Amino acid sequence: MAKWYLTAGDQRDVVVSTRVRLARNIKGYPFPWRLDTPSRLKVNEIIIKAAEDENLGLKTINMKELTAFQAASLAERKIISEEFASDSDGRALLLSEDEDVSIMLCEDDHIRLQVMKSGLSLEEALKKADEIDDKLNKHLNFAFDERLGYLTEKPLDLGTGMRASVILHLPALTNIGQISRLSSTVSKLGLSISPVFGNGTQQIGEYYQLSNQLTLGISEKAAIANLKSITTQIINQERSARKELVSSLAGQDRIYRAYGILKSARLLTTNELLEYISYVRLGAAVGILPLNTEELDEMTIVMQPASINTCKGAKLDRIERDKQRAEMVREKLE
Amino acid sequence: MAKWYLTAGDQRDVVVSTRVRLARNIKGYPFPWRLDTPSRLKVNEIIIKAAEDENLGLKTINMKELTAFQAASLAERKIISEEFASDSDGRALLLSEDEDVSIMLCEDDHIRLQVMKSGLSLEEALKKADEIDDKLNKHLNFAFDERLGYLTEKPLDLGTGMRASVILHLPALTNIGQISRLSSTVSKLGLSISPVFGNGTQQIGEYYQLSNQLTLGISEKAAIANLKSITTQIINQERSARKELVSSLAGQDRIYRAYGILKSARLLTTNELLEYISYVRLGAAVGILPLNTEELDEMTIVMQPASINTCKGAKLDRIERDKQRAEMVREKLE
Repeated sequence: MAKWYLTAGDQRDVVVSTRVRLARNIKGYPFPWRLDTPSRLKVNEIIIKAAEDENLGLKTINMKELTAFQAASLAERKIISEEFASDSDGRALLLSEDEDVSIMLCEDDHIRLQVMKSGLSLEEALKKADEIDDKLNKHLNFAFDERLGYLTEKPLDLGTGMRASVILHLPALTNIGQISRLSSTVSKLGLSISPVFGNGTQQIGEYYQLSNQLTLGISEKAAIANLKSITTQIINQERSARKELVSSLAGQDRIYRAYGILKSARLLTTNELLEYISYVRLGAAVGILPLNTEELDEMTIVMQPASINTCKGAKLDRIERDKQRAEMVREKLE
Repeated sequence: MAKWYLTAGDQRDVVVSTRVRLARNIKGYPFPWRLDTPSRLKVNEIIIKAAEDENLGLKTINMKELTAFQAASLAERKIISEEFASDSDGRALLLSEDEDVSIMLCEDDHIRLQVMKSGLSLEEALKKADEIDDKLNKHLNFAFDERLGYLTEKPLDLGTGMRASVILHLPALTNIGQISRLSSTVSKLGLSISPVFGNGTQQIGEYYQLSNQLTLGISEKAAIANLKSITTQIINQERSARKELVSSLAGQDRIYRAYGILKSARLLTTNELLEYISYVRLGAAVGILPLNTEELDEMTIVMQPASINTCKGAKLDRIERDKQRAEMVREKLE
C-alpha cells in the first residue's frame, strides 16, 4: 500500500503535507513521566484495547522491539518524536498501514494522536483525528476540565490539545529574503514558522513548518481556519515569487545544476540531498523538470541516514551510506 | 583545417601541449621599445618579406585592424602575449592556418617565433622552430654575439633566446598536495612550474606550465632534453596518483559531479568552466567518461570571454556570455 506522502494532495506544489496532532490523557493516571514501567504498560494496554475494539486498523509496535535505527527512521519520517525514538521504556506506537495515522503511547502524554495528509488538507486531517478521538473516547475517560479543556502534560497544550501544521516548500520566498518578514508577520497571528531541516545555525533546503501556537481560548475549527487562511496567502506569495525566479537564468541555472548533481553524484550526504532536491522540486513544481513532487518528497523522507540503514538492513558507515544514497537517487531520477 | 590542439599528441592524457619560442632581433635596428611607429613598420616589412620569400605559409595580421576582443582572443589562445594584444602600435602577427606557428613582430624583440604542438613534442617543436629560424636567417642578419649568443631585449633571454614549455594537467598530484614539493624540485633543475589559469591568490583548474629558465651556457638541445626528462617523471607520478584518485569514491564523485554540472548549467563563468572541465578531463583521460581530451582542451581555449565575443561577433555582457558559454558546453557534451 502506498504511503500517504505518495498520494496526490491539494496545493502540493507548495504544501508538502498537513499534520494534526491531539494530546490526550486518561483520567486517574499520572502523566507518563511520573509512571513506572509497569504502570505505563498498563496504560498502553488500555488504549490498545480501545483501538482494537474500535477496529481502527492500526498495528501495534512495541518500541522495545525496534533496533535503534528502526526507531530513528520512524522519527525521520515524523511518525514519532526524536525523544520517543531515543527512549523506548514503556512505550508503544499504533500505526496505520499507509502511515497517515500514528498514536504514540506514553510520550509526554498518554496519547499523542497524529494524522498526516498529502498537500493542504487541514479540515480532512482534523476530521479524521476527531473521529479517532471520539472512538477512543467511548472507551477511555479523558482528563478534561471545564475551564482548561483537555489536561495535558505541557501547559502550552492545554485547551484543545491540538497542534496543526503544514510543511511548506518556499524556495522562491527564501531566495528573495522574505522568510524573516514572514516569520514576524505570522507570529502576530498566533502561528510560528521554522525550517524543517538543518540546525540552529544552518538551514538546509527551503522547507518550513508553519504551525498554530494557540490551544487555549480558541476552538479547533477556528485554529484550523486561521492556519489555512494564512497558508493560502503564503502559497500565493510563493507562486508569484516562483514566476520571477524560474523566468530568470540564475533560477533556471540553479534548478538544472541541482538536477545535474543529483543525477551524477557517487557520494551524497543527507544535507546535500536536501539542499539540491529543494531546487529540483521547484523545477518539477513549475514544469521545467519531468518529475513529480510526490516522489521527490518521498526521497527527502526515506533517504535520511536511519531510513537507509533500515532499508539496507544494516548499520552502514557514513561513506557507505552516502554511496547508497547517491545510487538510490540516481536510480530514482533515471 | 583543424587547429593544432584538436590533433592527437604523445602523452596527451597528461601533457596538453608543447611550446617552443625563439627570440630574435635584426642587427642594426634598436629593440622595438626604442623604435617609433614608422621604424617598427619598416622592421615588420623586412621580416614579412623574408617569410613570404621562404613560402612559410603564414598569413599576416595587422594588429591595428583587429577589434579589442579579436586581439584578446588571440592572447587567450596563447598565440600572442597579453601585452601584445593590448597595444597594437606598429605590430603585426604572422600566423599559420592551424595556428601552430605564430610570429609576433615588434613585441619585446623584433621576432618572437612560437611553435605549438599537441601533447609532448619538444624535439618536433624545436625542429620546426629551428627550420623557420634558419629560413628567416637567410634573409635577415640576426644580432648575435660570440659570447652572449643571440642578443635579446630581456637579459634573461640572452644565449639561445629559446624558451620551451609544456602544459601539464595534474589533477591527481594537486589533489594530494604535491605541487609545492614539485615546484621546489624543478626549480633546482633550472625549470619553473606555475598554474595556467587563475591569479596570484586563486588557482583555477589543475593545469600547469612547466618551462626552462636557462638560456645562457646551455644548448637548445640540452635544455629540451632536460625539460623532457623531468616532464616524463612528472607524467609517471601523475599517472600513478590518478590510479589512486579515480579508484576512490571521492574521486569518482568529483568527476561525475563536474560532468553533471557542465551538462546542466544554464550560466557558466570561465572560472567555473575551467574548474569543472579539469575533472571531466581527468575522467576522460582515465576512460571513465566517454569524451576525448582534445575536444575538452579546445573548450578551455575557445570558451574564454574574448573568444566567445569573437565567435558571436559581438561584445556580449557578462551574463549573456555566461549563457552562451553554458549553451556551447551543453552542445559539446551532448
